Amino acid sequence: MQVLAVDGHESRRRPDRLVTEEPMEVRIAAPHEPAAPFAVTMRTPGDDFELAVGLCFTEGIVSGLDDLDGIAYCLGGEGEQLYNVVTVRVRRAPPAGVRDRQFLSNSSCGICGKAALEEVATRTTPVGAGPAVAASALAELPARLARHQRVFGETGGLHAAARFDASGLLIEAREDVGRHNALDKLIGNALLERALPLGDAVVLVSGRLSFELVQKAAAAGVPVVCAVSAPSSLAVAAAEQFGQTIVGFLRDGRFNVYTHPQRIDVGG
Amino acid sequence: MQVLAVDGHESRRRPDRLVTEEPMEVRIAAPHEPAAPFAVTMRTPGDDFELAVGLCFTEGIVSGLDDLDGIAYCLGGEGEQLYNVVTVRVRRAPPAGVRDRQFLSNSSCGICGKAALEEVATRTTPVGAGPAVAASALAELPARLARHQRVFGETGGLHAAARFDASGLLIEAREDVGRHNALDKLIGNALLERALPLGDAVVLVSGRLSFELVQKAAAAGVPVVCAVSAPSSLAVAAAEQFGQTIVGFLRDGRFNVYTHPQRIDVGG
Repeated sequence: MQVLAVDGHESRRRPDRLVTEEPMEVRIAAPHEPAAPFAVTMRTPGDDFELAVGLCFTEGIVSGLDDLDGIAYCLGGEGEQLYNVVTVRVRRAPPAGVRDRQFLSNSSCGICGKAALEEVATRTTPVGAGPAVAASALAELPARLARHQRVFGETGGLHAAARFDASGLLIEAREDVGRHNALDKLIGNALLERALPLGDAVVLVSGRLSFELVQKAAAAGVPVVCAVSAPSSLAVAAAEQFGQTIVGFLRDGRFNVYTHPQRIDVGG
Repeated sequence: MQVLAVDGHESRRRPDRLVTEEPMEVRIAAPHEPAAPFAVTMRTPGDDFELAVGLCFTEGIVSGLDDLDGIAYCLGGEGEQLYNVVTVRVRRAPPAGVRDRQFLSNSSCGICGKAALEEVATRTTPVGAGPAVAASALAELPARLARHQRVFGETGGLHAAARFDASGLLIEAREDVGRHNALDKLIGNALLERALPLGDAVVLVSGRLSFELVQKAAAAGVPVVCAVSAPSSLAVAAAEQFGQTIVGFLRDGRFNVYTHPQRIDVGG
């Protein structure tokens, strides 16, 4: 689009690219039942099936690939593909209460629809022992992610989540206007690749680390969760409970370890 | 809390402050009815009543101060104050469908609970003509907001929303772990001060500008919405429709105008 770029008293029209933010509706279709709306998320189009599956996994609708019968864009009345509506066909009906929890999550939200405090800290079980990670390997992660974020340099508006192995090798990275979508895409990819649980993974998210990101990572079994910026108090409290190592302010070769530092090898 | 600060092969224990992120439940109490859960938001404690009222306003539960009968922290079983549960007493029952839309919004979410695409762009009416704003005044806003964000320098994890007049004078600013909460607090404050609609205001948010922030600002009648980072495509589309001027990448004395540039006086 054309924008008016203003610098002091100078202004000129110039082209600008925007990060695309569009709603995507996820519907769940259980056997012998019509598809029912489950969630609407404001997301950057792309990797939509991974996002739908990742969201279903982190929300407890499916626990693995074997629970899936199919994923499809919906057809409109004229047989037209609707690219903002994804139906996830599941082999068995989701647990009562989970399916009825309809919600709309936006570009930074992932714990919608649970209308009481007690439901916030839910079904997450502690992660496994996981690997030891060298501090020198951790320090390299942001630069490795940045090389994958081609789009980021163009728009300045995309978040990313990346999965590394314990040596710091980047396995997968996903981008989205919302951090929680980027992480859901990453987890959905792992589910589709039969790579869950991610018991040996190190995950890095751009920006800050909220409670819900920690909870999603814990659902996927991720033992080490890193963020370029600060974790929140509840993120740290959850990670303490789930047994995860939280690394924050990971940039410029430095970082802080907030929980379970035994997995970080400072000498390495 | 104590963190392990790692820099190369050096590590040391040092104290660190975390941004507090705690769930707050908002309950709506209509006349002759028990209070019912309406929303749970992950927020930074502080200005809780403004947040509760702002959320009720931007979600269509109340339209002004005259709709309010009271705001209170709830009492627990022992008469103990529960500071994470706020009850908003309203003078008349909210419209059907609005009250039933229970949702949990997290620290960057504010349009939860509407489980269909059609409901995303809702009841918002276009804003008024609003003021002309000098480009030189706009360029000063981030520095003026930064002076208000004392906490930001300590934790690196807080967002802010600030209301200025057309000359660039800062009227109010609010902070939160979530941008949408910061804006809801700002709007809730304006409602309690009988300052709505904010037809002459310029609002600045830290970070990027999403659809839901634009929609909240439009609900409050804000004609000029500025962000330090990028707007999303849907944010721009919504502002175009609502008649709002969107200013993005407002930093280092420069900015881009995405919609309705007639309110920006580049010579001024």
